[in-house]
Amino acid sequence: MRPILPSSGMDRRVLLSALALLPALSAALLPIAAQSQSATSGGLLPSWNDGPAKQAIFDFVRATIDRSSPSYLFPDDRIAVFDQDGTLWVEHPMYTQVVYCLERVPAVVAKKPELKNAEPFKTVLSGNREAMAKLSMQDLEKVLAATLTGMSVEEFNAEAKAWMEKAKHPRWNRLYTELAYQPMLEALRYLRDNAYKTYIVTGGGQDFVRVYAEKVYGIPPEQVVGTAGGTKYGYAKDGKPFLTKEPKLLLNDNNAGKAEGIHLMIGRRPHAAFGNSTGDRQMLEYTKAGGGARLAMLLLHDDREREYAYGPAQGLPETKVGTFTQALYDDAKQKGWMVISMKNDWRRIFAFE
Amino acid sequence: MRPILPSSGMDRRVLLSALALLPALSAALLPIAAQSQSATSGGLLPSWNDGPAKQAIFDFVRATIDRSSPSYLFPDDRIAVFDQDGTLWVEHPMYTQVVYCLERVPAVVAKKPELKNAEPFKTVLSGNREAMAKLSMQDLEKVLAATLTGMSVEEFNAEAKAWMEKAKHPRWNRLYTELAYQPMLEALRYLRDNAYKTYIVTGGGQDFVRVYAEKVYGIPPEQVVGTAGGTKYGYAKDGKPFLTKEPKLLLNDNNAGKAEGIHLMIGRRPHAAFGNSTGDRQMLEYTKAGGGARLAMLLLHDDREREYAYGPAQGLPETKVGTFTQALYDDAKQKGWMVISMKNDWRRIFAFE
Repeated sequence: MRPILPSSGMDRRVLLSALALLPALSAALLPIAAQSQSATSGGLLPSWNDGPAKQAIFDFVRATIDRSSPSYLFPDDRIAVFDQDGTLWVEHPMYTQVVYCLERVPAVVAKKPELKNAEPFKTVLSGNREAMAKLSMQDLEKVLAATLTGMSVEEFNAEAKAWMEKAKHPRWNRLYTELAYQPMLEALRYLRDNAYKTYIVTGGGQDFVRVYAEKVYGIPPEQVVGTAGGTKYGYAKDGKPFLTKEPKLLLNDNNAGKAEGIHLMIGRRPHAAFGNSTGDRQMLEYTKAGGGARLAMLLLHDDREREYAYGPAQGLPETKVGTFTQALYDDAKQKGWMVISMKNDWRRIFAFE
Repeated sequence: MRPILPSSGMDRRVLLSALALLPALSAALLPIAAQSQSATSGGLLPSWNDGPAKQAIFDFVRATIDRSSPSYLFPDDRIAVFDQDGTLWVEHPMYTQVVYCLERVPAVVAKKPELKNAEPFKTVLSGNREAMAKLSMQDLEKVLAATLTGMSVEEFNAEAKAWMEKAKHPRWNRLYTELAYQPMLEALRYLRDNAYKTYIVTGGGQDFVRVYAEKVYGIPPEQVVGTAGGTKYGYAKDGKPFLTKEPKLLLNDNNAGKAEGIHLMIGRRPHAAFGNSTGDRQMLEYTKAGGGARLAMLLLHDDREREYAYGPAQGLPETKVGTFTQALYDDAKQKGWMVISMKNDWRRIFAFE
């Protein structure tokens, strides 16, 4: 059995840098930043600067909703897909779900004391960041399997929800859910206002993202496609049926898996796709290769001051979280994807700014 | 690699009885019976006789849409799931998809002449119905794999669509798509009019049912959950990406697989479920086991004159297509599922009557 990986793009360096920044858990329950989705003044997409990226979104929507347009789409055919980590919210210094898994280890060990002295749990429990950073990918997979599977769907949902209501990002000291990008929330809203069905297509865990996607992005569980494991149907002592999350990978929703996952879960080719890393390449090219008007957008993190800067395009350093290579940048230019410069195209990044 | 089975409940006898009834292909393209979904006079659910089944639907909907009800559901939470074969349309004498697969064999062999003298294709091509009836399940699986996989998603969709536009049921000499049950089309419509999102959850092939579900039932592709195989992302000679259907089973959407498929594809427990066979048992009990108002309905085929009569309940003979056992009937009574008697509860069965 192969454990579920929320994403394939993580290594020890990322773990190390993230561990150095992990905050103590805050007990305070703060409200979720769903308010950030409410309409704002200043016209459509107010957090976007005027420029080619904003214009591309406008042009695409107009071309597909205008009945006289050759690219007109019936409302039922309007599908738009968004990667999550690094596209809809902050992915640095570590994927939020991996932080969740590491922080769940004490609770898992409390229920299964036999893990206490077993690796890699012992190391994670030690809090020794240097030792944790040396954990292998196999070790990390054990942590993910132990914290994401083996419990009922309801138990997992309750645990993840409780964590999301209190866990904070080390840099901003704000809930992760507050770190959704305001321009993307506006793009989601704008597309939905024009009858687009908006989907998340994430390398992260499908069940994990479903816990908060409606509140944060206005996207219901059935419109979240992600890396998914199997479940097993069974009965509790009182005869009630329930589903247990199994360490069996059904869909690795990364790279080609994103196009395959779109077919499995949605069943038709989207007309608009938003991504930010090599893991989104196939989703973007699959979307763009269809007929009629198609929108493919690639977010470049080039704003170290307001967020992060990574990826070799424009001389930024490459990282393992949200890999953005020169080849991806070249692909975007060659295939007609629109590159969004966080620095230049976004007037505001977060709702709290 | 395990080929994709559209359903597990078929054996040689079914094949035999079906082969005896297979019509010659009709070249005439007749209009699809989507018109049957238009509103009819005579109040809500006009094709249902007054009685406990019709009343159960009304009571459930009222309990979940009335804001003063303790079982009120926000519109976003309203999910209803329907089995297809035998619940939304006729499944006798043979699942429509299996007829499709058998009739596709000549076209597959034309493209792959090496199959012409290989079993089981040779037997299917012979037209010798007695020999065909002796094919093993392994043989039949080869037929399904050869006719449902190995082509692009677009090719499959075009082939299946073309077939559905001309293939007719042997008993009524009408398109299969005309054999949707009018009372169920009204129930779908009534639920949607009350903000329910309606899903098909079928043991049949997800891709196959998606081809016509929107036209026949008003259900878009992304709301069809079915037995699903993997796809493989690749590139055509011109560099365009496409997906190839693979003979790799991802989801066997029968029995416990229906509850597991609902979690994978929808991500939350439905509030209403409609089924007709042992393959729907877990879907019905999973739905019914949730809190608040829950509707679980089980269609009993007890109308030999207007449709078919099968299942041991009420002394009907058991069959392998749409297995309805005495234990299932007892389960329904014990767990509070409403049994729909086709004979007594349905005033009209088909739109063309």
